[in-house]
Amino acid sequence: MTININIGASGQSYCALVGVGLLGQIPDLLDEYAPAYRYAVISDAQVSELYAEGVVSSCRSSGKNVELHSFRAGEASKTRENWSKLTDSLLGTGHGRDSCIIALGGGVTGDLAGFIAATFLRGIPLVQVPTTYLAMIDAAIGGKTGVDTHFGKNLVGAFHAPKCVIADPGVLSTLSIQERSTGLVEAFKHGAILDAEYYDQLCTGTDLLLSADPETAEAAVTASIRLKGQVVTKDELENGYRQILNFGHTIGHALEAASEYKLNHGSAVAAGMVLEAQLGELLGVTEIGTSQALYSDLKNLGIRIEAVSQLDPKAIMSFLGLDKKTRMGRSRYVLLRSIGEVEDSGGWSREVDESLVREVINDIR
Amino acid sequence: MTININIGASGQSYCALVGVGLLGQIPDLLDEYAPAYRYAVISDAQVSELYAEGVVSSCRSSGKNVELHSFRAGEASKTRENWSKLTDSLLGTGHGRDSCIIALGGGVTGDLAGFIAATFLRGIPLVQVPTTYLAMIDAAIGGKTGVDTHFGKNLVGAFHAPKCVIADPGVLSTLSIQERSTGLVEAFKHGAILDAEYYDQLCTGTDLLLSADPETAEAAVTASIRLKGQVVTKDELENGYRQILNFGHTIGHALEAASEYKLNHGSAVAAGMVLEAQLGELLGVTEIGTSQALYSDLKNLGIRIEAVSQLDPKAIMSFLGLDKKTRMGRSRYVLLRSIGEVEDSGGWSREVDESLVREVINDIR
Repeated sequence: MTININIGASGQSYCALVGVGLLGQIPDLLDEYAPAYRYAVISDAQVSELYAEGVVSSCRSSGKNVELHSFRAGEASKTRENWSKLTDSLLGTGHGRDSCIIALGGGVTGDLAGFIAATFLRGIPLVQVPTTYLAMIDAAIGGKTGVDTHFGKNLVGAFHAPKCVIADPGVLSTLSIQERSTGLVEAFKHGAILDAEYYDQLCTGTDLLLSADPETAEAAVTASIRLKGQVVTKDELENGYRQILNFGHTIGHALEAASEYKLNHGSAVAAGMVLEAQLGELLGVTEIGTSQALYSDLKNLGIRIEAVSQLDPKAIMSFLGLDKKTRMGRSRYVLLRSIGEVEDSGGWSREVDESLVREVINDIR
Repeated sequence: MTININIGASGQSYCALVGVGLLGQIPDLLDEYAPAYRYAVISDAQVSELYAEGVVSSCRSSGKNVELHSFRAGEASKTRENWSKLTDSLLGTGHGRDSCIIALGGGVTGDLAGFIAATFLRGIPLVQVPTTYLAMIDAAIGGKTGVDTHFGKNLVGAFHAPKCVIADPGVLSTLSIQERSTGLVEAFKHGAILDAEYYDQLCTGTDLLLSADPETAEAAVTASIRLKGQVVTKDELENGYRQILNFGHTIGHALEAASEYKLNHGSAVAAGMVLEAQLGELLGVTEIGTSQALYSDLKNLGIRIEAVSQLDPKAIMSFLGLDKKTRMGRSRYVLLRSIGEVEDSGGWSREVDESLVREVINDIR
């Protein structure tokens, strides 16, 4: 089944198509959603071998002018240097404004290729073809693109809405079990901030989701895209309501940075959710027991929350100053009321006394 | 006199303020148009000494948290490397989303600092304070930002509307005579594509404009901003009508590239206007004599059109393939009907037979 979901504010609207087998229909989908004179598929070396080369062949068979530009797999590739290199590779092969970029891969590919599309000749069309849980559920939806710097992740980037998002849950079977479990963290986050019933379904279906059961995966990807789509439609540029998607991320990003990015994003956000729920409980905003529930449900998903206990609390605190939500030099937090509901404090995020944050961070050990 | 001009499509609207003495009012203007927690003034070393240090002092005196980030003057600085370096300099000094960038300088500064603002934490507020004719009349208006690559100019960038543009024609007196004459080329272009009466005023007032007579300069800057503002309001993202602003630029950009950017932008565009008018005459679209009129009026402005005769026609032709207006692999041209009017061919630009372009280019010698 193919599901159309309209996402987009500021006049830009696009569809997210979710369905097992969609990867095989890409040539037709490009004709429908992103007709262009030329295409450049951007993919990492691993996904190139698994899927991108096949997509390029099928596009060529249907008469499209398309080539593959690949880069080394991994978060370490999400840099300004690779953005430059791939941009030059497109310029060198004569791409123009009538070209369309196809970002085929996980979150790194979507962010990196998306930032290339956002800035190539001041912006050319983009199609997101996410191939991981993380990218399908989260990264490919909402128009955020960007790269990392040594000061932190995603500190340089742009908003650039895709022409469409094509998610084929059939490809999830080639992910490692760790990629599946860490990718699903964002689905739990969607449930935690917006939909208690969905959260419960994720808890019940954890095993099927981890085995990449196509039907269960398609349902979860669809539900998460719907939820995230509703949020970014209300607030595309992250000035207000969209901040709720950052639940778990204020501390999560600091954990990632403090680990020098050895800790993966999903595990960091999972720990961030647990810790930010604890912060909310200390403040009397979050229902007592929420942090504990998140902890055991995410542990059941296979996340090792304990891993963060090896990080230096001082390093974590210092990185909390560089969060993108920082206002007036201080970090802001999205707090839950309970599973399924966030606090509307007026601005959807709030400052928290540094001593309280320090208490929670020191408590990690 | 301060003139407010509303510019902007896509919901974003901003003001261009033009007036002798406005540089001294910047602290108050920031309070009114771009209130922020912190400010970063980006300026080249030359303009830093002349004006930026003074602006920083006056902002500090009025209690603002502001510092100066400067770079080496010249088009050679408009690179991804400097964009990275200045971005890191902002990150390193702890700037966040509540910071505002002030681009104080010529076109290079506006484009470079603008691209930093467009991509810093996925976009922060920007104020353009142009200090040259070129920047006041053209570069600071319309939201285009970007940097050069070795494949050509402005090939990487983003659209990022400023909060406001503050143009003080009083600063034009410190420009060299060459900067004045080359900067005024874009004013002649505005007249040539949109307003024959304004074009005639520019011809009559050439000497006063070249001596940076404050009253004449203020009138021309205001008129040009009004004209350009009307165009970009109709078509902010350059998909249609805005292309008319590229008159002279298809060939102009190729001339710049073929000269390895030794030829300045104004002179290249001036030559591009003359040659594209010639192309239009050959095609029977442009009134006979237009090219000759442009040639003598721009020569009177102090532009040495002949300089391009030293360039290699083959190099020029090869760079014509990389113009941003390229569609389906071929360059497109904006053609005049006569001074003051462009051809509406349906799409505001058209392909031209390569042999005809070659004829005009070879004719340069």
